[in-house]
Amino acid sequence: MLILMSSDHTKKQLEGVLARVRSLRLKPHVIPGKNSVAVGITGNAGALDKALFEGLPGVREAVRVTRPYKLAGRDFKHEDTIVRCGGSEIGGRNLVVIAGPCAVESEEQLLRIARAVKRAGAHMLRGGAFKPRTSPYAFQGLGREGLRMLATARRETGLAIVTEVLDQRSLDDVAEYADVLQVGARNMQNFALLKDLGKLKKPVMLKRGLSATLDEWLMSAEYLLSEGNDQVFLCERGIRAFSDHARNTLDLNVVPAVRELSHLPIIVDPSHATGVRARVAPMARAAAAAGAHGLMIEVHDRPDQALCDGPQALHPDDFARLMRDLAAIGRAVGRPLAPRAVRR
Amino acid sequence: MLILMSSDHTKKQLEGVLARVRSLRLKPHVIPGKNSVAVGITGNAGALDKALFEGLPGVREAVRVTRPYKLAGRDFKHEDTIVRCGGSEIGGRNLVVIAGPCAVESEEQLLRIARAVKRAGAHMLRGGAFKPRTSPYAFQGLGREGLRMLATARRETGLAIVTEVLDQRSLDDVAEYADVLQVGARNMQNFALLKDLGKLKKPVMLKRGLSATLDEWLMSAEYLLSEGNDQVFLCERGIRAFSDHARNTLDLNVVPAVRELSHLPIIVDPSHATGVRARVAPMARAAAAAGAHGLMIEVHDRPDQALCDGPQALHPDDFARLMRDLAAIGRAVGRPLAPRAVRR
Amino acid sequence: MLILMSSDHTKKQLEGVLARVRSLRLKPHVIPGKNSVAVGITGNAGALDKALFEGLPGVREAVRVTRPYKLAGRDFKHEDTIVRCGGSEIGGRNLVVIAGPCAVESEEQLLRIARAVKRAGAHMLRGGAFKPRTSPYAFQGLGREGLRMLATARRETGLAIVTEVLDQRSLDDVAEYADVLQVGARNMQNFALLKDLGKLKKPVMLKRGLSATLDEWLMSAEYLLSEGNDQVFLCERGIRAFSDHARNTLDLNVVPAVRELSHLPIIVDPSHATGVRARVAPMARAAAAAGAHGLMIEVHDRPDQALCDGPQALHPDDFARLMRDLAAIGRAVGRPLAPRAVRR
Amino acid sequence: MLILMSSDHTKKQLEGVLARVRSLRLKPHVIPGKNSVAVGITGNAGALDKALFEGLPGVREAVRVTRPYKLAGRDFKHEDTIVRCGGSEIGGRNLVVIAGPCAVESEEQLLRIARAVKRAGAHMLRGGAFKPRTSPYAFQGLGREGLRMLATARRETGLAIVTEVLDQRSLDDVAEYADVLQVGARNMQNFALLKDLGKLKKPVMLKRGLSATLDEWLMSAEYLLSEGNDQVFLCERGIRAFSDHARNTLDLNVVPAVRELSHLPIIVDPSHATGVRARVAPMARAAAAAGAHGLMIEVHDRPDQALCDGPQALHPDDFARLMRDLAAIGRAVGRPLAPRAVRR
Repeated sequence: MLILMSSDHTKKQLEGVLARVRSLRLKPHVIPGKNSVAVGITGNAGALDKALFEGLPGVREAVRVTRPYKLAGRDFKHEDTIVRCGGSEIGGRNLVVIAGPCAVESEEQLLRIARAVKRAGAHMLRGGAFKPRTSPYAFQGLGREGLRMLATARRETGLAIVTEVLDQRSLDDVAEYADVLQVGARNMQNFALLKDLGKLKKPVMLKRGLSATLDEWLMSAEYLLSEGNDQVFLCERGIRAFSDHARNTLDLNVVPAVRELSHLPIIVDPSHATGVRARVAPMARAAAAAGAHGLMIEVHDRPDQALCDGPQALHPDDFARLMRDLAAIGRAVGRPLAPRAVRR
Repeated sequence: MLILMSSDHTKKQLEGVLARVRSLRLKPHVIPGKNSVAVGITGNAGALDKALFEGLPGVREAVRVTRPYKLAGRDFKHEDTIVRCGGSEIGGRNLVVIAGPCAVESEEQLLRIARAVKRAGAHMLRGGAFKPRTSPYAFQGLGREGLRMLATARRETGLAIVTEVLDQRSLDDVAEYADVLQVGARNMQNFALLKDLGKLKKPVMLKRGLSATLDEWLMSAEYLLSEGNDQVFLCERGIRAFSDHARNTLDLNVVPAVRELSHLPIIVDPSHATGVRARVAPMARAAAAAGAHGLMIEVHDRPDQALCDGPQALHPDDFARLMRDLAAIGRAVGRPLAPRAVRR
Repeated sequence: MLILMSSDHTKKQLEGVLARVRSLRLKPHVIPGKNSVAVGITGNAGALDKALFEGLPGVREAVRVTRPYKLAGRDFKHEDTIVRCGGSEIGGRNLVVIAGPCAVESEEQLLRIARAVKRAGAHMLRGGAFKPRTSPYAFQGLGREGLRMLATARRETGLAIVTEVLDQRSLDDVAEYADVLQVGARNMQNFALLKDLGKLKKPVMLKRGLSATLDEWLMSAEYLLSEGNDQVFLCERGIRAFSDHARNTLDLNVVPAVRELSHLPIIVDPSHATGVRARVAPMARAAAAAGAHGLMIEVHDRPDQALCDGPQALHPDDFARLMRDLAAIGRAVGRPLAPRAVRR
Repeated sequence: MLILMSSDHTKKQLEGVLARVRSLRLKPHVIPGKNSVAVGITGNAGALDKALFEGLPGVREAVRVTRPYKLAGRDFKHEDTIVRCGGSEIGGRNLVVIAGPCAVESEEQLLRIARAVKRAGAHMLRGGAFKPRTSPYAFQGLGREGLRMLATARRETGLAIVTEVLDQRSLDDVAEYADVLQVGARNMQNFALLKDLGKLKKPVMLKRGLSATLDEWLMSAEYLLSEGNDQVFLCERGIRAFSDHARNTLDLNVVPAVRELSHLPIIVDPSHATGVRARVAPMARAAAAAGAHGLMIEVHDRPDQALCDGPQALHPDDFARLMRDLAAIGRAVGRPLAPRAVRR
């Protein structure tokens, strides 16, 4: 931590800061500047709270010198984490693709789409049984019944299941059926839910919140890790900016940033990031070229009848074409598409 | 709903759209333009999902003509909602002030501050027993014990209690003690929690999410209202923008916007919106002048020892001075400070 | 400047940083941390460029300890700057109001509105002769002829004239007629124009860019000040965020922030900040309560015939009502409305 | 244009709207809704100004049914524009790469780097002679002398020159030397400069403003096109959002959006978009995979001595490696790297 004193601080105010540092059994280092003075602090075991200093008279700002997270950072664990789900490894050398409908609508719909994405080479199956919807009047998912359909699809296709957990009440049910539990963007800072998920022994996919900084995102991962669950991977799905030409603003820049700062794998969801079918494939290709460990893509064979997010779903034929592009790009950038999933 | 066709749509695609509209038992109205064509839709009872049309070939965009919320809007209920909590009315003619510490730290701390804010004229007492923290290592609140201290403070001062509910598990506890249950910014779209709160018969204060549009905010209120709880008021607490000179960007513009579109009361939290003590009073005064129904302000008598958000807490003396300013502004804009709370 | 080394830097990389600091004839101070090391730098006369260090191997980040601006900051000049224009003082104890139409449309229109705003108590007259328009097909202003009409209105009413300068070519013309030259939001970083304006001896009003940080804004003021023009005041007019309920997001929080860091006066333009007539008065009242030195407000007596921004123009009667509110708020917060302008 | 009436509009207000439409010699179409009414307008030749209607009593909002730009859109010109500069074609089938230093620092520096990027396969040379700098105290470029050095480098290498024009005064000089005139992000809405550039017969590269929507960007292109210059291409260089992990937020989503709506070519500048050397290559690869027509990349062989933006400059070896990756990705996505430039 570094404390920047305001330019008109008094000698007494500086002494107050030094006293506060010492009272915390830490060591202050005064760094004189031209117009002002800074105080470096050493001796702390974990991250210090800026608020310990920013309220003191004469203090302009407290600047963190070390990152606020610990377990999620490369200082703690240098080598890449690999998350194993079903027969796939996320975070290793290969590109992994999760595909399926936005929502489970019926067993028939799910099986049709599951078979199609498997045929095209997808490694895991996505499908929402509990859906977070902006409107209380929109389709909220089939719930427990949807989970059972996902289990059926897994049995039929051998694909591992990724599905969202919305709240603490349905957590046990989702954990019973899912191979990977998804935390949605709107729940990224639902800390109570994160704590519960941290106690599970199942992989968790943590989506980035609409307005989450990278530090905040990794701090949410820290909630999972600090409770003991180290099977965690991240998913960038677009952030909220002023732009109005797409549903969200895909922040691919965060992919190399995550890989630099954290050992956790990162995948990209181009479907929510764009909201428009025609832009899903370009952004999926871009994410693969940027070095993402995987992709999650919405596919529907009858998108105009979909109960949720039809306009962003790829048709199975388009998805198959995209898989071929991804294979070519993967070869070009040294991250080949993972081998086809085999039934466990 | 209005469907805008792309400029190079074919006759067949237009017919597809008309067929889709009719299949929903609605009535299409073709509006020819210079370069393109639009299709107006009438006959729907509630809001239509854009996704029903945006996936169709030849469609450029679907534009909502009516607002997505119903119960939260003025069309449904024209007159202002007044929420009664303790002896105060939020949403009526008077300005109501909620004040207290960020977190309950001890019975002694809480009582000291509660008495000070009461003396200065505050109408309700705030204090967090369950605290949502970005870091799993930060102080998470005293929990149930904090709730009991709040009850003691209410008994001592007669001030009604506003406190945050973080999750479904602690909901019953919080509901037992609180006069108003606060939903924090990070939980604004925790739809499972909202549904549970909608079944209560207690007032709920719904804070705006960091990146929530006005429509999304009112849709979250709609979750509460549609479950039967009509004792709801909103709280603007700053949004996330690119600015780096303050913790958040206070969006006071939303105050007249809410009052125009919705019958729900709206208050402002200048403490979180600024994050800096010296800017709390200017923004509190601005919010009162903008027509907010109330304010929520953090106060601490020993801010440099506060376990949470000390830098933004006003000292009781500064708070008392602010209350005098608010009284003067309230008189100037025709929204006088509510009379002092009387013990119930 | 403070250099934060990455956690896995080598000893040699640290030595490279120290050597670089010494090669600039500055003094490095090594501050050991738990996981990493920081290097404080002292001895520099002005602000250092971060780029001098951020490219070096082993460096994670360079953090500025002092602000990048000099002349615009309080370190350089502690007491408030007061800008004199016509008979008014902006930056002093009183609230100053600039009002008038968005664009000069005709001599008759301008005179009608100028008389109306004077009657209501406005201190200066605004009106655009050169208009920056998003579309090349929109009304671009009357140009030099508009300037002459403004001069006529000044003669008739005694009100000083505020008008926008768009480019270097028309600078001399505008400077000949205007009492205050306005730099619009889109030109805030038109550095060539700023340098030319810095050589004038006339007051300049510098509007904040749509996505300008406070530091960037003050650096643009620094361009004016460093060329020798110290008659500069700032104007907040709303920034661009994700919000869609208003034309822009008014950032009133910047008012106390500017007043803390800079000696330059700051006024607020609630018309562009809202874009909607009904919200102009609430935001104008809020700006006055927040401590702004002045306001700039668009007024039109026939807004539905206005060639530019009619929807945000106040009718003269509404403006007169607002002036009464501002007088009352000004008294309440200790910044009374300036006395009526007298003919010079 | 579609006019949405507010839900409580009166019959008289609706008639006022119809009268206004007819007074403009246009045709109104009333579309009755459940809670309200909309009025479609037809018969207009160009885009209507929303302000013509939004000020009228009873009107909630005016919604544009057609895009505001004309010449920049696909309705006007369906086939892709190809811009020819030197021996290269931007907007055709091949990927074109512009590379070079941020700023021209000396003839020797420029020639060294120009030869290096040519050797690696770059098609054009970038280098700033006039530099827009946030600080008036930072290096502002070598000016006219820098332009002469660029001409020397062109003679030596055969590479066409891309350089920025900052203002009207230096426009003639820049136009004399440059093959492509660059309009920087901060000047995207410097309409006076755009009008002058529209009268030239030289290619213009228009960078996106930090907070420009796609419509605003294309409207700025419209200024160029409407003055007669049809040799225009666009450059995405990152927008400003809340994110703090990178200098800007690269919005790759805009690449397919531009290609859908406009016939103008679009390239990507990953150097400014990231600001950090290590992330330039991943974002360059991503842009190529997303379908951009070209890339502009900063290269410096002594980045730690660069006078401008050293931390984001690639070393020539890294640039050569990136060119090989781009060739492979180009083949994978059907947009092969353009053949090497030949001396004209």
